[in-house]
Amino acid sequence: MKIEFWFDFASSYSYPAAMSVEALAKKENVELSWRPFLLGAIFNRQGWQDSPFNLYPAKGAYMWRDLERLCDELGLAFTRPSQFPRNGLLAARVACLSGDAPWLADFIRAVFTANFADDLDIASPRVIASCLEASGAHSAVILKKAQLPSAKSRLREQTEQASQRGLFGAPSFFVGEELFWGNDRLTSALNWAVKNRY
Amino acid sequence: MKIEFWFDFASSYSYPAAMSVEALAKKENVELSWRPFLLGAIFNRQGWQDSPFNLYPAKGAYMWRDLERLCDELGLAFTRPSQFPRNGLLAARVACLSGDAPWLADFIRAVFTANFADDLDIASPRVIASCLEASGAHSAVILKKAQLPSAKSRLREQTEQASQRGLFGAPSFFVGEELFWGNDRLTSALNWAVKNRY
Repeated sequence: MKIEFWFDFASSYSYPAAMSVEALAKKENVELSWRPFLLGAIFNRQGWQDSPFNLYPAKGAYMWRDLERLCDELGLAFTRPSQFPRNGLLAARVACLSGDAPWLADFIRAVFTANFADDLDIASPRVIASCLEASGAHSAVILKKAQLPSAKSRLREQTEQASQRGLFGAPSFFVGEELFWGNDRLTSALNWAVKNRY
Repeated sequence: MKIEFWFDFASSYSYPAAMSVEALAKKENVELSWRPFLLGAIFNRQGWQDSPFNLYPAKGAYMWRDLERLCDELGLAFTRPSQFPRNGLLAARVACLSGDAPWLADFIRAVFTANFADDLDIASPRVIASCLEASGAHSAVILKKAQLPSAKSRLREQTEQASQRGLFGAPSFFVGEELFWGNDRLTSALNWAVKNRY
């Protein structure tokens, strides 16, 4: 059984999902595939040049309070980032080129923690390097790779695939071609994988 | 302890919430207050002249599939309405003027069932009359009352209150001034009421 976890490093609700998806999937014996993509590119196609949480202030104010409550429930550290959304391009390229490297899951959680718990700028190569090192990866080699045209096009292709499969927000989960949107749907997606033996 | 349930008769995710909120609140010994309002008026202020589920097709396609899955899980009848969103103005005026009439909860569920299970036009006074009669109310008297300026202004005021309190979507729940948005947050809202003894 398999679940795809589609996320963006800048996306606020991707944070609690990224921190809990692996443990929950393991518990249900569901295989997990990490799928970083660029939510901004999807938003642009919907006519938004910024996060809807910035474009619609009432929605944004609610989201921050809701996220605070959620993290509290999950026992997750949370600091409202001083900049939102942050530029997750470099982190997404790194995660995208890394296939199923043994350090990938730890790296992803380190970047989300940097953004949403430690209020660090994840656009900074220095921050990403330290997330890589903390996860047991060789940052110099990987950061160099992330600048190659192949790394850039891989992320572009993955984002294009997201759009073509009907993805419109993050986090999202695919179980086969069944789409689940939002951190709230993590359990439903896992149940779907188990029930339908995906 | 008390929870306010804010809903719009045209709102798709308000349907499962409306059908389950009373039983769940009773189970937790939380008092329930029904608060109809006009989501369209709130959307207009956000610059939308239509439901975001129509404005953003990928989001809309997902919503219908998600709602189908949800209703299936809850054992709720569901038919995708042939018209969306329907005009819930008359139903909302009726619900709004009815305070805590003993037939109110049944009436609200009857209207949601008409819209989302029986694919009936809830803008029609005939449909609303039959929802009233089925709930044990005198439809002729109430439909006449619903046309009075006082009934119209009561709904307008309630919608204005929703906007001023930061409400931006439906269904929503208030527990004191703590806002919870979405059918997904019904359990969280009830837990909040219990935990904080609202």
